[in-house]
Amino acid sequence: MIIGGSASQSLAAEVAKQLDEKLCTVEIKKFPDGEKYFRIKDEIPEDEKVVIIQSTGYPQDENMMELFFILDTLSDMNIEDITVVSPYLGYSRQERRFKEVECISAKATAKLIQSMGVKHLISINLHEESICDLYDIPVDNLSAMPSIAEYIRNNHDDKKPVILAPDKGAENFAKEIAEILDTDYDYLEKVRLSPEVVKTKTKSISVENRSVIIVDDIISTGGTIVNAIDILKKQGAKKVDVVCVHPVLVGDAILKISAAGASSVKATNTLISEVASISVGKTIADHLKTLQ
Amino acid sequence: MIIGGSASQSLAAEVAKQLDEKLCTVEIKKFPDGEKYFRIKDEIPEDEKVVIIQSTGYPQDENMMELFFILDTLSDMNIEDITVVSPYLGYSRQERRFKEVECISAKATAKLIQSMGVKHLISINLHEESICDLYDIPVDNLSAMPSIAEYIRNNHDDKKPVILAPDKGAENFAKEIAEILDTDYDYLEKVRLSPEVVKTKTKSISVENRSVIIVDDIISTGGTIVNAIDILKKQGAKKVDVVCVHPVLVGDAILKISAAGASSVKATNTLISEVASISVGKTIADHLKTLQ
Repeated sequence: MIIGGSASQSLAAEVAKQLDEKLCTVEIKKFPDGEKYFRIKDEIPEDEKVVIIQSTGYPQDENMMELFFILDTLSDMNIEDITVVSPYLGYSRQERRFKEVECISAKATAKLIQSMGVKHLISINLHEESICDLYDIPVDNLSAMPSIAEYIRNNHDDKKPVILAPDKGAENFAKEIAEILDTDYDYLEKVRLSPEVVKTKTKSISVENRSVIIVDDIISTGGTIVNAIDILKKQGAKKVDVVCVHPVLVGDAILKISAAGASSVKATNTLISEVASISVGKTIADHLKTLQ
Repeated sequence: MIIGGSASQSLAAEVAKQLDEKLCTVEIKKFPDGEKYFRIKDEIPEDEKVVIIQSTGYPQDENMMELFFILDTLSDMNIEDITVVSPYLGYSRQERRFKEVECISAKATAKLIQSMGVKHLISINLHEESICDLYDIPVDNLSAMPSIAEYIRNNHDDKKPVILAPDKGAENFAKEIAEILDTDYDYLEKVRLSPEVVKTKTKSISVENRSVIIVDDIISTGGTIVNAIDILKKQGAKKVDVVCVHPVLVGDAILKISAAGASSVKATNTLISEVASISVGKTIADHLKTLQ
């Protein structure tokens, strides 16, 4: 049985269809005062394996509380075998302490999720792999890169684009996609030319007259991407497209990236967004199959 | 040590002052993506008694998550003696199941709050006394009626107004205030005059040419209050004022109540509101003193 939360409705429907599992009939609404209401309308046998699919991106507190409400309702129904798929796991960016005494919100969230009786957590491209260590239950961190590579193969006019990470931290994403597409990858690095001058440039290869696809896990304000586009254009890139896993895309980020000269901005549907045209449904469904 | 959450800042400051306790220096902000950040800037000894004051009204999910983050940070500091004062406790309205299988959000919330290590919970005029039974820790349900009575005594021109509950459920509130002020109280009841005609009227006393103060625990959309004002005006009330504990006051509720003819709308500061001019600070401080 698949239960969709309000932040991942069509994704839940897609996963249910791919697995040929029932999508649970639920009622989710808000009272006039802003409080959420959740109800399960189907009967679920106590020994049923239940998978909840609920992204916990913006509005993260609301989506998180809704997830807790779903879990508590299942617990009232004596259902124990519960897997949560949170394709974008909110509060994954503060997973350590930078100052005394900060709240490690990723750890607090882990404590809350576990206190509500989850057996297994699945997410996609967690911002830090170390998030998994905050949990006592198994956490599977799936990669959306195969889905993104597939999307590029089917939709990009240049069959051998340069897959480019905007910084060293994203290099592995570029590498994973480039290997699937059998093309080049690289990342942007800062080089100190003199004590005063720092230049950001591609690490190994020239992008002159080539089609480039910038890839990152999360795009938030878009500042890093705008900067990367500027550099690539100056280095003579023919065309720059942008793709990411999690389209956080705060405020006018899509406009900024587009105005900087990106031919397109695309992302996966781990979050609801107008650019979320790449589905991670198959990635999730295939992984759930291996757990059965 | 008193820690204020972002939904009860001045109330926390007032309680700290009344108890001559330190108000903890904290940092609370939101990242551009909407995630909350919480940090405790003061040192707190491990054996300190800490009181967190954080209302969990609208936006309830955000205020609730912030409360969890404060609790988790204290837990990291090995502080165990933690009392939470949530003057308005969000999700108190669904404390039982009306349909199969609804989420009992008051119970889910209780589970979450307790899982974060609270020793004692204090709230004000919980919508249902039975909320207390959902907790394993002690829950003190304080009354704001003495503060409201005090406010009426100091601000109302008529020293013997009729304190009126808009329905039987609120009668005890009217009674408590009337006894302090040594004045009359009553409630509105529905009387079936014929199989087709139902009339709502004051139960025992006449309001003709009298000054009336309608009192309720929560005003949400204001529908009940508007209806009560209409009836009181028809029955010849000279002046109608409205006061409540929790100013939920969804959307245009204040405008609706004022347009219906209320001379004033006032409430306590259990929630942030433009009509919250009655402080429950003393009620909370006095109660905390008894616990020391």
